Amino acid sequence: MVRRLFLHHARRRLHSGTASSIPLSTPIFAIFGANTGVGKTLVSAGLATALLSSPSPAVSSVAYLKPLQTGYPVDSDASFVFSRTPALLRAFPPCRATRLIASCRTFFQSPAVEAKAESLHESQEKVVTYGAGAAEQTKVLACCTAYAWREPVSPHLAAEREGMAAGDDEVKGCVEQWLLEEGIGEGGEVWKILETAGGVASPSASGTLQCDLYRPFRLPAILVGDGRLGGISSTLSAYETLLLRGYDVSAVILEDRELSNDKFLLSYLRNRVHVLILPQIPEDPLDDLTDWFSESSSIFIFLKDELQSFHSRRIERLNSMQRKSKALLWWPFTQHNLVPQDSVTVIDSRYGENFSVYKIKDKMLIPQFDACASWWTQGPDSNLQIELARDMGYAAARYGHVMFPENVHEPALHSAEVLLGGVGKGWASRVYYSDNGSTAIEIALKMAFRKFSLDHGIMASSENSTRNERNIQLKVLALNGSYHGDTLGAMEAQAPSAYTSFLQQPWYSGRGLFLDPPTVYIKSEVYNISLPQSMQHDPQTYGDTCFFSQAEVFCKTRDKTFAADLYSSYIKQKLSEFSLSSSSEHLAALIIEPVIQGAGGMLMIDPLFQRVLVSECRSRKIPVIFDEVFTGFWRLGVESASELLGCLPDIACYAKLMTGGIIPLAATLATEEVFESFESDSKLTALLHGHSYTAHAMGCTAALKAMQWYRGPSTNSNLDTDHMKLKELWDGTLVKQLSSLPNVKRVVSLGTLCAIELKAEGADAGYASLYASSLVQQLRKEDDIYIRPLGNVIYLMCGPCTPRDSCTRQLLKVHRRLCALN
Amino acid sequence: MVRRLFLHHARRRLHSGTASSIPLSTPIFAIFGANTGVGKTLVSAGLATALLSSPSPAVSSVAYLKPLQTGYPVDSDASFVFSRTPALLRAFPPCRATRLIASCRTFFQSPAVEAKAESLHESQEKVVTYGAGAAEQTKVLACCTAYAWREPVSPHLAAEREGMAAGDDEVKGCVEQWLLEEGIGEGGEVWKILETAGGVASPSASGTLQCDLYRPFRLPAILVGDGRLGGISSTLSAYETLLLRGYDVSAVILEDRELSNDKFLLSYLRNRVHVLILPQIPEDPLDDLTDWFSESSSIFIFLKDELQSFHSRRIERLNSMQRKSKALLWWPFTQHNLVPQDSVTVIDSRYGENFSVYKIKDKMLIPQFDACASWWTQGPDSNLQIELARDMGYAAARYGHVMFPENVHEPALHSAEVLLGGVGKGWASRVYYSDNGSTAIEIALKMAFRKFSLDHGIMASSENSTRNERNIQLKVLALNGSYHGDTLGAMEAQAPSAYTSFLQQPWYSGRGLFLDPPTVYIKSEVYNISLPQSMQHDPQTYGDTCFFSQAEVFCKTRDKTFAADLYSSYIKQKLSEFSLSSSSEHLAALIIEPVIQGAGGMLMIDPLFQRVLVSECRSRKIPVIFDEVFTGFWRLGVESASELLGCLPDIACYAKLMTGGIIPLAATLATEEVFESFESDSKLTALLHGHSYTAHAMGCTAALKAMQWYRGPSTNSNLDTDHMKLKELWDGTLVKQLSSLPNVKRVVSLGTLCAIELKAEGADAGYASLYASSLVQQLRKEDDIYIRPLGNVIYLMCGPCTPRDSCTRQLLKVHRRLCALN
Repeated sequence: MVRRLFLHHARRRLHSGTASSIPLSTPIFAIFGANTGVGKTLVSAGLATALLSSPSPAVSSVAYLKPLQTGYPVDSDASFVFSRTPALLRAFPPCRATRLIASCRTFFQSPAVEAKAESLHESQEKVVTYGAGAAEQTKVLACCTAYAWREPVSPHLAAEREGMAAGDDEVKGCVEQWLLEEGIGEGGEVWKILETAGGVASPSASGTLQCDLYRPFRLPAILVGDGRLGGISSTLSAYETLLLRGYDVSAVILEDRELSNDKFLLSYLRNRVHVLILPQIPEDPLDDLTDWFSESSSIFIFLKDELQSFHSRRIERLNSMQRKSKALLWWPFTQHNLVPQDSVTVIDSRYGENFSVYKIKDKMLIPQFDACASWWTQGPDSNLQIELARDMGYAAARYGHVMFPENVHEPALHSAEVLLGGVGKGWASRVYYSDNGSTAIEIALKMAFRKFSLDHGIMASSENSTRNERNIQLKVLALNGSYHGDTLGAMEAQAPSAYTSFLQQPWYSGRGLFLDPPTVYIKSEVYNISLPQSMQHDPQTYGDTCFFSQAEVFCKTRDKTFAADLYSSYIKQKLSEFSLSSSSEHLAALIIEPVIQGAGGMLMIDPLFQRVLVSECRSRKIPVIFDEVFTGFWRLGVESASELLGCLPDIACYAKLMTGGIIPLAATLATEEVFESFESDSKLTALLHGHSYTAHAMGCTAALKAMQWYRGPSTNSNLDTDHMKLKELWDGTLVKQLSSLPNVKRVVSLGTLCAIELKAEGADAGYASLYASSLVQQLRKEDDIYIRPLGNVIYLMCGPCTPRDSCTRQLLKVHRRLCALN
Repeated sequence: MVRRLFLHHARRRLHSGTASSIPLSTPIFAIFGANTGVGKTLVSAGLATALLSSPSPAVSSVAYLKPLQTGYPVDSDASFVFSRTPALLRAFPPCRATRLIASCRTFFQSPAVEAKAESLHESQEKVVTYGAGAAEQTKVLACCTAYAWREPVSPHLAAEREGMAAGDDEVKGCVEQWLLEEGIGEGGEVWKILETAGGVASPSASGTLQCDLYRPFRLPAILVGDGRLGGISSTLSAYETLLLRGYDVSAVILEDRELSNDKFLLSYLRNRVHVLILPQIPEDPLDDLTDWFSESSSIFIFLKDELQSFHSRRIERLNSMQRKSKALLWWPFTQHNLVPQDSVTVIDSRYGENFSVYKIKDKMLIPQFDACASWWTQGPDSNLQIELARDMGYAAARYGHVMFPENVHEPALHSAEVLLGGVGKGWASRVYYSDNGSTAIEIALKMAFRKFSLDHGIMASSENSTRNERNIQLKVLALNGSYHGDTLGAMEAQAPSAYTSFLQQPWYSGRGLFLDPPTVYIKSEVYNISLPQSMQHDPQTYGDTCFFSQAEVFCKTRDKTFAADLYSSYIKQKLSEFSLSSSSEHLAALIIEPVIQGAGGMLMIDPLFQRVLVSECRSRKIPVIFDEVFTGFWRLGVESASELLGCLPDIACYAKLMTGGIIPLAATLATEEVFESFESDSKLTALLHGHSYTAHAMGCTAALKAMQWYRGPSTNSNLDTDHMKLKELWDGTLVKQLSSLPNVKRVVSLGTLCAIELKAEGADAGYASLYASSLVQQLRKEDDIYIRPLGNVIYLMCGPCTPRDSCTRQLLKVHRRLCALN
């Protein structure tokens, strides 16, 4: 019965890579070992006993879970805890008279176990009393084994040899179910203890390391150290392995083998974690350990107190974070008056695509799908996150930070090679590193202006520039709705908006000719081209403004249509008007976000228009800058958005996804011709722009790993290797259905992005709109999707490696909400 | 004799925290163990045998070093290699007839060893022949033990119990000496093998973990894994511990215990490192292992080939880096034409304050003191570097990256608390995160302008800002020589310079009133105040322009002198001239680098002048910004330079040292009044400026660690805790001597900075100057100080924790060179 119930729940599996809900009302700890055979189960039993005998805090119930057990039934850690704890309670200091209901269950046994273990019940229960006087209270000890194999080897071998697999999702499903089960028992706390198998990095049944398998839960760890010769090393290494998975270690506890390992560890781990020492464990297999437990009781009681205090501090801190953040922080882009304290999102950790969010009312950690892909940077799935943590730890330890001009180090050089062989392939020959998208743009503009000035004879000799040149005004050619960053130089290259008002940036003047671009969107299952009002045309001559597939929109044959001619004459006319209006002003650079304008509201620009624009600039020797900070590195389904456009820039900027979106780094790539325009014999003509962390080793190391991970068929299962593009992530049918909803104005779906503009009029439209906010609140609170709207545009964004089924789940939730709104 | 020689060299100790010279002409590997007792010494002996029997590459000599040996002489790994290798050569495939001269030496024995080991010679030698035919060649096997203790326990216990210490500097001195010794033997490669004791993180004699002790050498590691149950976990954890110290692992090799640990490791470590498997080691202590070695010979030969190839790839890559960097990179602030390929610095790693630089001609890694503190960011000593690597690895694994607006996470909140309780104490109440100094400045300016506009009624209602306000020009009050970053907004706040020319930034206009500040410098042992020409004054009334100590310069009693009046009237006059010149222009912010102008040439500004300036702005309700990007966090010997000035800002910017100078992060701190000027019910009045990585978890985690490390008495021995300032780092007497040299124009020495301006006239002065370049080349090439000049200013910069004796050594070298120049 019990088993069937459990089975039923376990089938409600966790999806790969998703995080899990974790109750924090209950103290829950995971026991990890520095090695196998260091006494994890003794610690489990000792801790359970200390808890059940404790007058303060009053503990009503202890649940123990051994998810993976090998060597069963000879070795059964759950059975040990079940059978020994009741007896041990008498060895601990006397407490109030108590009735204990103890149970022991095993859910899944391999055929080899079932064949041999006739005598073993899969479920046992007993009732004992302990303490002084007549039993006044009832407590519960519930011990479970989830999966049991017979051979005393690593679970991955046992699973293979005995023919009972236990996939990660199944095991995590069991653990989640166990975590969410309410404890029984009267008037006191419920504690839970999960005991892992072997060492911290021992393989689970699937081969996933245990520290990785249980990472979605990120339970505070108790590390059972190694008291033997060499044990300092294995304990510290195990500790570091846990840190490199983002675990908090609440205590280290180890056996005394008279080598003073504890003293050394105590000193080394001072201010980090408590170290406790247990008496030497008798080696005689006949010793029933009663004396040892009795001798150890004060240590286990101390451990229990430490854990209690660790748990309380954690909860206190989590409970205070909303209040403190409102008092101390100043968030970007945020009107603090509009953020009530209880709407602040407390992020306890992240696992792959999911935040783990603390809900103060429920005392729960809830996974939320990060639909803004941490503001457009985020790339890693849960595996890449761990790889990046390890690689960046290595880079920090190897290089710290080393300055860059006139120097070279391996990560900077190697990532330059990968950049030039990837997004820069076929055009770029130089990499200029900086540290964010905005600085990459300012550098690109400086490059373009120099190249333009030389090509157009604005500086006869570049070294003799004088104040006279100040009469010459260099401007950019750009598109309305564009966004290139928040530093002044980047802002000057974008059209006026709420961001650029006098209130925001009194120094902004808008140094550009800003054209109105035609856009593309899906509405009622059809791709529509929307022409700006300024582009006067005869609807008859333009031709089709409707397409039935994305491929048609991007098709190069459109170059030969009337639409191309219309675009070309519109651009020519604007350029000609500009040059007539002033002889001292020059359009010295074209700067565009290829295909998608992100901050502008996730607008898809007609690729044909951008292609024509690039071509017109080329013929005038105006350098072309692609701002790929948002669009680069598979954001739009291809490594570089220039592949979608079908034309190449002279200069391009990359950041965000480049490093996996985990650490700041930016790069401006340029052609050799652009580079050469800075060459001379004088330092004064060099590009005198830099930032302290240019090409910093950790950033370059992360970039290397991320760039290679995205484009590796073995690491990115979304990759269509034949076409070197991502498979469809947002279900096409669902996207079309969305586009047909009456409250949806338009949909843009490309690569990792699916944006939905809601119908809104007047004050509801635009950046300041709060129109979407109730929808957003529902999605956040009830659907566990962390959405951040852009005015009346909501969007889902994933990483290049996010599994398609996860995308579909999120999109279904949005679809359901939008249907309900109607 | 041998011992005395070695002792002599060993006394030439490595200084704490310094890196070491490492020859790369010789393949050198370090053998680490996943645990104790995993067979490191068998691998040493097997590898030595494979090398000595190898026809290709021809190896003439193998040197083996066991720096720390316990259990001696019963256990002597050097003795094992010495005694077994000659015999084993016969078990390996036959090679050319060879005469082998094998020797074994022990340098330092504990008294307990000496008392008992009557029969053991401290030096043995034997000659054997092997191979087919008459001996045609001579090879050498030199085995050494550096320190030997009797008890078979961890070296830190043995050292304590037996009364023979072996400090880290002594041990590193031995290793360095051994590394630099030329191998003897004919016609072939010299190989070296260093075998560590216990596991990777086992303590050395001093208690330093072995992986940390040997880190200055960063020898490629051979990790001997663990084939036992639990061995997958301990092998992977040990591997991660090595990565977290910046080691490259060249191979993993482990014993087969029929648990298939190798298969799992092979799969897990695929594409990272080779995994080799050895036959099971006989447990019988009487087995002389001849059969085992014979069976293993092909594996050891394979290992040798792997290591050979690893070494060759490393050297090839290092040799190619100068060429490739010239071809692919575009360095900031660099005229590529002026950088010959062979002058590019190839940085292989960093350890504390030292680069490890590859010298292609000598095939050597040379430590160079990073005197530009990696361009003004660097804070960590070698211990903090490892702490930061571990903490950032943890932060990446726990958080990856999570977006910030309306969210809170622990590292962002905690570092905000530390910022507000430290540099912001007494004035700031809000932290605005961004990602570099330049963006922090742009944010600060936006804050100041808003505050000024509200205070001065420029926007009656902040929400109704219109184009009319464009007629109002907001400008900054700033100082000539100031520098605030390379993005346009930051540049606009600085006076014209080589950086701001039309050639560099056509959009620069210089939106400020720039005052000439009086400066302070040391010349001929005296602190001089130099008044700008624009500051007309009667020398009689100004008073003293000479001081005999820094304390006098900073003394607050100067507020009551005529100098203060002179400054005040100069400032008043300039402000009044400005306001008369235009009614639409307003000085809406004061922005200064407190005390030291860094990029401007390491100029020390008279603190009295800046104090008066702040006071004049306060009285006019002009918000005051301190740009502490360079000066903050102990750069000038105090946590915040405002302590030196004796006055507080309304807004201040921090970056660089804040994170230990290891990862980009910046913060703009502000008073609550400044914050309030952005509050309303509309999102449009919020500060709409942000960067993707605002408050990113890794950066905040590093900041937390670094800020606390600098100010912790137990972690920063430079701290004078009574006065919360750094002790004198640059020897005062030496600084005064330098200031008296005829070719020195001025010296500025404060906190971690010691700058020396060389006398130069005309074209030799200023940013474009190459005057200092020959001196700089000497210091780099001959004195191993990595100096980067600012025109004719050279400077030494260290971290807040750099030991004083290291500073003195560098300063002495500079002094010597400058004397020689005379």
